[in-house]
Amino acid sequence: MKPTPSLAPAEAEVLRAIDESRLLRTLAGLIAIPSWDGHERRAQEYIAEAMGGLGMEVDIWEIDEDRLRGHPDYATEIERRDPLGVVGRARWGDGGRTLVLNGHVDVVPPGDLSRWATPPFEMVRQGGRVYGRGVVDMKGPLVAGLAGVGAVLACGVPLRGSVLFQSVVGEEDGGLGTLASVLRGHVGDGAMVLEPTGLSVAAAQAGALNFRLTVPGRAAHGALRHEGVSALEKFMLVYRDLVDFERERNRRVDDPRMSALDVPYAICVGTVRGGEWASTVPESIRAEGRFGVGVREDV
Amino acid sequence: MKPTPSLAPAEAEVLRAIDESRLLRTLAGLIAIPSWDGHERRAQEYIAEAMGGLGMEVDIWEIDEDRLRGHPDYATEIERRDPLGVVGRARWGDGGRTLVLNGHVDVVPPGDLSRWATPPFEMVRQGGRVYGRGVVDMKGPLVAGLAGVGAVLACGVPLRGSVLFQSVVGEEDGGLGTLASVLRGHVGDGAMVLEPTGLSVAAAQAGALNFRLTVPGRAAHGALRHEGVSALEKFMLVYRDLVDFERERNRRVDDPRMSALDVPYAICVGTVRGGEWASTVPESIRAEGRFGVGVREDV
Repeated sequence: MKPTPSLAPAEAEVLRAIDESRLLRTLAGLIAIPSWDGHERRAQEYIAEAMGGLGMEVDIWEIDEDRLRGHPDYATEIERRDPLGVVGRARWGDGGRTLVLNGHVDVVPPGDLSRWATPPFEMVRQGGRVYGRGVVDMKGPLVAGLAGVGAVLACGVPLRGSVLFQSVVGEEDGGLGTLASVLRGHVGDGAMVLEPTGLSVAAAQAGALNFRLTVPGRAAHGALRHEGVSALEKFMLVYRDLVDFERERNRRVDDPRMSALDVPYAICVGTVRGGEWASTVPESIRAEGRFGVGVREDV
Repeated sequence: MKPTPSLAPAEAEVLRAIDESRLLRTLAGLIAIPSWDGHERRAQEYIAEAMGGLGMEVDIWEIDEDRLRGHPDYATEIERRDPLGVVGRARWGDGGRTLVLNGHVDVVPPGDLSRWATPPFEMVRQGGRVYGRGVVDMKGPLVAGLAGVGAVLACGVPLRGSVLFQSVVGEEDGGLGTLASVLRGHVGDGAMVLEPTGLSVAAAQAGALNFRLTVPGRAAHGALRHEGVSALEKFMLVYRDLVDFERERNRRVDDPRMSALDVPYAICVGTVRGGEWASTVPESIRAEGRFGVGVREDV
């Protein structure tokens, strides 16, 4: 990495201390752990180990999901066993402020493997880029953040405060890991989530709610389908209304940090399941989706 | 049952010999066996037992599905274990002709149990009717046919020919059991399928093909759904075309035995499955359905 001329000497020193080959080794190991939602334990142990190797103090604990369940901010979509909390602290002085960095180890399942150009759980370097499930969202940024903290620790630039690095689970399904970290007292004076957003700092963030729709119909033999009511056809009407609703919501966005986007608050139907038999009019369709929530919007 | 005045004495005698309470007992026992597709074995054993009790000779055999698989008329939708063939013969003389009666023991799965007014696998009598999964399609007609044969045997009216009663599996998913019965040599001079069609004799019958559609899309995060291609939205376009295609096909029907129906050859999409994650644009949708095939239509 080449420091640009506008950097202060201390900044340049930190940049020079970044160990890029170690960063890539750490990333390759993390990509290789198939840590999709609910299967994050090994990835968390791996990050705790990496934090220790950089000289951070590490708090690693079993998250008590039964206790979290009563909290108003608790949200999850899936059953998980034995979620682990991992927070590393880099401390320089005692009087300064605390910056929280946050990154998640969970990834979305890889889907149809035949449609991947490279194996999802293997880091592949090609043309100056790295490929793999979660390289962008967000194993890459997480490991980059660790490398940054490691560089500050390694080069001996003295800071006044400390960095608390929350490595969390369950970001893709509600934010269980971040909630657990905060409730354990790992909070600071400011926080940055390390998810990349066009490689720029985003000072506003849309929210999201997940929803589940169940559309009823009335079963009938397919040969007499007009005597039944297809839940699938009813669902299509609902879907059309969702698309209209999304358009209407996004027409009204006036926050300049969001209105520049094509669709600031997207509504996406991600799964659909229904019907039990090819020759029976489906009596029920279930769909799950994601509803973009506006900045400062109450839900 | 009251014979009407137009009946011949022998016909009246047969009607009087129908044992209605036995018929209902047999039906209750058959309804109680949850013989949906692929789970028909106990129902077939039950029918073989009933045939024996009426004095029919029974052929009961293991259907060798591996051998049938090569036959051009072989069709099935599901994996099944140990399908059983059951054919009963009632013979009066040696010179006469053979009438084949055919009924199936398989039923469609009951779907959402909470939407049944009575338990599906229990015969319930109410207001002169009986209720239960398959009462109409077609455990009721099957047992009624057996009662008819039993009555002819019991009352001693002499016939010249014989009746071959095929009790079959797999009607709902392609007709495996009937094919197996025919290939075993259980054929006759004429055949009646005992499925009820408005309680009248139907001299023409639409066919059916099952189809499976896989519609591809391109995954993307739900927040950026416009950067993906929703397989679900693509599927909806295909669905609309199917509805148009059905309308077009049914406009052209000129067989008077079929054109009286609202939709002689319905196209029904019975199941739909797709997407893996609420917040991911679905990259694939799979749908299964039934395509009505016309009388004398080549496929």
